[in-house]
Amino acid sequence: MTRLHDIGEDVLIDRLIALVPADPSPGAGPGDDCAVVDPWPDGPLLQLLKTDAMVAGIHFRADSPPRAVGWKAVARVISDIAAMAGTPDRVLVTIALPAATEVAWVEDLYRGIGDCLNAFGCVLAGGETTRVPEASAAVISVSATGTVGRGHLALRSTASAGDVLLVTGRLGGSLSGKHLSFTPRLREAHWLAEHHPPSAMMDLSDGLAKDLPRLARASSCGFRLDRESLPVTPGCSIAQALGDGEDFELLIAMPAARVEPLLRDWARAFPGMDLTVVGRLVSAGEGDTLHGGWDHFAG
Amino acid sequence: MTRLHDIGEDVLIDRLIALVPADPSPGAGPGDDCAVVDPWPDGPLLQLLKTDAMVAGIHFRADSPPRAVGWKAVARVISDIAAMAGTPDRVLVTIALPAATEVAWVEDLYRGIGDCLNAFGCVLAGGETTRVPEASAAVISVSATGTVGRGHLALRSTASAGDVLLVTGRLGGSLSGKHLSFTPRLREAHWLAEHHPPSAMMDLSDGLAKDLPRLARASSCGFRLDRESLPVTPGCSIAQALGDGEDFELLIAMPAARVEPLLRDWARAFPGMDLTVVGRLVSAGEGDTLHGGWDHFAG
Repeated sequence: MTRLHDIGEDVLIDRLIALVPADPSPGAGPGDDCAVVDPWPDGPLLQLLKTDAMVAGIHFRADSPPRAVGWKAVARVISDIAAMAGTPDRVLVTIALPAATEVAWVEDLYRGIGDCLNAFGCVLAGGETTRVPEASAAVISVSATGTVGRGHLALRSTASAGDVLLVTGRLGGSLSGKHLSFTPRLREAHWLAEHHPPSAMMDLSDGLAKDLPRLARASSCGFRLDRESLPVTPGCSIAQALGDGEDFELLIAMPAARVEPLLRDWARAFPGMDLTVVGRLVSAGEGDTLHGGWDHFAG
Repeated sequence: MTRLHDIGEDVLIDRLIALVPADPSPGAGPGDDCAVVDPWPDGPLLQLLKTDAMVAGIHFRADSPPRAVGWKAVARVISDIAAMAGTPDRVLVTIALPAATEVAWVEDLYRGIGDCLNAFGCVLAGGETTRVPEASAAVISVSATGTVGRGHLALRSTASAGDVLLVTGRLGGSLSGKHLSFTPRLREAHWLAEHHPPSAMMDLSDGLAKDLPRLARASSCGFRLDRESLPVTPGCSIAQALGDGEDFELLIAMPAARVEPLLRDWARAFPGMDLTVVGRLVSAGEGDTLHGGWDHFAG
């Protein structure tokens, strides 16, 4: 009898997707940070759809400040929309909570949701509330719509062997606090799309060790990672930078010839924020392998 | 210390909505079956957004057939889109499951999701998988987009005192099986919007006793209910027809002068399916009161 922890998240998703009708639209469907749909065929914009969930005891603790939990629930989704160079607009929030949950806790959760919506120009369009059995973990599920210009859309699957890999910010140690208070790299992603369009981009939610192989695989490439160059959060190890997860930084692939002007302009546009070359993509079947990172069913 | 079961779902939602930025678009925002947004200002269509969640032990049982659970998870959302006379298109599915869940169970769940997507011409656009702690209930959260013609949109809030109230099908006893296998009234809702547009409409998910007062309140009306006329599922009591919930039938308000032609045409269009007058809307502050129905936090 095979159980979820035996096969892991990526294999599970591949098996499930095969069982349901997929979106025939170009650039759509499961596998990237968001689904990309094309509801305005004559217009300049594509629509992005994203859903994400947080679970008590997994993504936050019972004693985490509820206002920060609310911020994080929305910020995770905005990070995914940013990773495609999109702009989030409308958010739907589902809360599944034990009936004995304090109303004050839920109100603080919603204040945090409101903080994040306001910070990024989004609105709450709807939601759902439901009870879970008393002994069960609270679940907060957030869906969002957004838009992206056709020429600005950044996918995981469009990089080429030879492209240089870069990451924003610093990696590792998110559990000491950043995972509850991070700022999605929306401004940075828009700037990149406008001035230095990546050949591929994604956000780092499950750790570079898990997410970099995903980007490489989606682009039919291998990768070489320069571990010594990783921008490690002060006090963290390289292993933490690779495996902790919840960094919510951007992983960028860029043609080699365009890296130098990118780094020069970035330093002027975002003083104090790191943008670091961490490796490059190589031909499929070559390069390094990485293990670790966050698997939702690894227990 | 106030807890969720002390205030109930409707009061909670009112308090939470006040804490977050709302959608400024007309006809949008929390309170109806779906959020209504207007992303194509020059076009004939509005977009509908909906999110819903099911919890193991609340909306389905551990031994419920997973394929039926998957059908229900999607059909609930389609029922809400139908209630606004809309057409669902893209669906996002989030599953939060214990890591020891059998893969075969999840695959059957997705086969049921696929059954329902195929039956109503929808596609899976994306999703999310996450773990819950081992002792926690599984949560299945489904979001969907849809469209509706501007002239066909059916709201809860647009009925008037004097309008006649009707329900499709039969009410009560859903737990004996219908709640897992119901057919959302999408075809019937489209027919109504085309041929006999309701003055207001919603789907019955929490029981007439809970949902009728919601429609009346949204339309700033009271209501009189003729309990003896309720179309009760064979073997069920009137109390069950009012309070069991999960009927997923349509509740329709219709100007009195248009009821007779509606009933005549309905009988031809949908032979064998009941459409029953159950009461009428009256002025606010007059009429009946109803208690009971399903409250998500009443325990």
